[in-house]
Amino acid sequence: MAGILQRYKAVYGLPDDYPIVSLNEGNTPLIPCEHISAHIEKTTGVTGLKIFAKYDGANPTGSFKDRGMTYAVSQAKHDGASHIVCASTGNTSAAAAAYGARCGMQVLVLIPKGKVALGKLSQAMMYGATIVEIDGNFDEALAVVRKLGNTGKITVVNSINPYRILGQQSAAFEICDELKTSPDYHFIPVGNAGNITAYWAGYNRYQQLGTIKNLPKMMGYEAEGSAAIVRGEVIAEPETFATAIRIGNPASWQQAEAARDESDGTIDSVTDDEIGQAYTRLAATEGIFCEPASAASVAGLIKACQNKQVNNNSLITCTLTGNGLKDPDSAIRLSDEQGIAKKLSLPANEQAIMDAIGL
Amino acid sequence: MAGILQRYKAVYGLPDDYPIVSLNEGNTPLIPCEHISAHIEKTTGVTGLKIFAKYDGANPTGSFKDRGMTYAVSQAKHDGASHIVCASTGNTSAAAAAYGARCGMQVLVLIPKGKVALGKLSQAMMYGATIVEIDGNFDEALAVVRKLGNTGKITVVNSINPYRILGQQSAAFEICDELKTSPDYHFIPVGNAGNITAYWAGYNRYQQLGTIKNLPKMMGYEAEGSAAIVRGEVIAEPETFATAIRIGNPASWQQAEAARDESDGTIDSVTDDEIGQAYTRLAATEGIFCEPASAASVAGLIKACQNKQVNNNSLITCTLTGNGLKDPDSAIRLSDEQGIAKKLSLPANEQAIMDAIGL
Repeated sequence: MAGILQRYKAVYGLPDDYPIVSLNEGNTPLIPCEHISAHIEKTTGVTGLKIFAKYDGANPTGSFKDRGMTYAVSQAKHDGASHIVCASTGNTSAAAAAYGARCGMQVLVLIPKGKVALGKLSQAMMYGATIVEIDGNFDEALAVVRKLGNTGKITVVNSINPYRILGQQSAAFEICDELKTSPDYHFIPVGNAGNITAYWAGYNRYQQLGTIKNLPKMMGYEAEGSAAIVRGEVIAEPETFATAIRIGNPASWQQAEAARDESDGTIDSVTDDEIGQAYTRLAATEGIFCEPASAASVAGLIKACQNKQVNNNSLITCTLTGNGLKDPDSAIRLSDEQGIAKKLSLPANEQAIMDAIGL
Repeated sequence: MAGILQRYKAVYGLPDDYPIVSLNEGNTPLIPCEHISAHIEKTTGVTGLKIFAKYDGANPTGSFKDRGMTYAVSQAKHDGASHIVCASTGNTSAAAAAYGARCGMQVLVLIPKGKVALGKLSQAMMYGATIVEIDGNFDEALAVVRKLGNTGKITVVNSINPYRILGQQSAAFEICDELKTSPDYHFIPVGNAGNITAYWAGYNRYQQLGTIKNLPKMMGYEAEGSAAIVRGEVIAEPETFATAIRIGNPASWQQAEAARDESDGTIDSVTDDEIGQAYTRLAATEGIFCEPASAASVAGLIKACQNKQVNNNSLITCTLTGNGLKDPDSAIRLSDEQGIAKKLSLPANEQAIMDAIGL
């Protein structure tokens, strides 16, 4: 199936000759989560929830960033750019490097010197990006990125690029197209707050077009150790093992608050323990392996049900932003700590194995 | 979109009440590869190839194994099984653990003691499988798996389970549905040889149904260090860095030879160097990051063009079996060795960066 710009060309109002750079992103699985629903009913008393996980880890580079990057890079190509740049140690750098490679642009990825393990950059490296270690911290890297953009010779594809959020709206389109309606509540992790902004804009766009009647309540969840919006202040040293939302000064702060207020939703925080529990529960009961940060949406859903913020029998969607394979270390650590994985050491004999598992 | 059993229910002849266990697998991107086509034209003189990569790394657990596992586990559920077992250190164990978790079955993954790094099992662990280390090598683990199956209390989901290959046929259906025809040549990695068997059966099924007119030539490629079919002998100690096809005694050996002969195709081998070159070329020019073994298909295509085995202007499909994130170590090593990734260390100053990249 074609990528998001081809499929939603009319919605985006793109001309026929728009130069689309695509890896056939989007069109990701919307997976029913009956076990999470049963767990919520049992532990909180909220009954009859129809829950779907939007698994954006199935995108070509393994995260929702592909939706925005196809648009940002296509527009850069449209504008005649030869170079793109971002400051990122994770999903943004992977997506920028892939789409840049695909259309022959030079891709610069700025990172703070000595602070980033190369393992985190395996994707950007494979896609042939130029990794620029700079003397300075991440904020200084971002500042240099902006200055590079101001030269007019390099296109910035960090989230200040407005086409990123435009492209990310497509996830809301896909959800409504598949459900043939809008959800009652949409749960989503909040880091830089671009994605909650994008979904809200996407749902509104579909309402304007008459494709859906009602808008969902937007339910955003930050990690407690980096909950800038919840606490109402910039956090200088954000902390959480959910690295993809470890952000102390969200770029789309105001837009996220607007999405919350306009939708009568909430922005709240969840602890690392709650995120970790949701992360392993998704894998061990639903068979869905996501990035730790992704599980903030499901952790938030469980918390909201505990707080009786969710009506019985609601239609719920939860965004899972990234692929679990992005962070195997957290998988090994948490599945071990929580006793999810069981390990046995036995002789090569079928009876010994049957005995050990009680069959 | 629904998974493969729901979408192809009529093709598979499944009853309406068949208990489908699905993660909405399949429906993976078919990505045009114009840069590979241009490279082939320039280096071999074969012109006008229309090449598509079927990127099965976008499946829920990151490989084509999900297509077969949804069928094998659904059938196990249909038959009332409570336990499933496989011997695997890679993609099969991840898929078995995910689909087993989703329907509440106990999943046993047998591995040789002390031979497998836990990092390879991060997925199976997260999905809550029971990892059973046995005293013995991989062949002995497989033998125990068969004996466990013979007890009638545990369902084997290794490739001897016939529903695996049935499910994998769906990739051929999807290709034909999207192209609205069959390809002229289908290139595919060959390890255990189940996938080439499945594609060939799938194309034949679609021809019987009248959905396509012609059948493609099946072009299978083993890694040189484990090219049992090409050499015509079992290889006791198979060697290749493309671990997913490091198999010295393919389970579907005869079926693969039949697919080759019936389709007037070929089974040949490619060197680790050829695989590595195709692997980095796919990432750095097409923006597609696959497992090393996946790239054997594209390495094979390039070799076949060098040998003038491919006609000009042909329609070509190449299966990419798995997600590059399954093996970040190979990505870092090869992108470094081949100079794909460039690294700079610079002051936090835009002019210094512009100077360094010659802008």
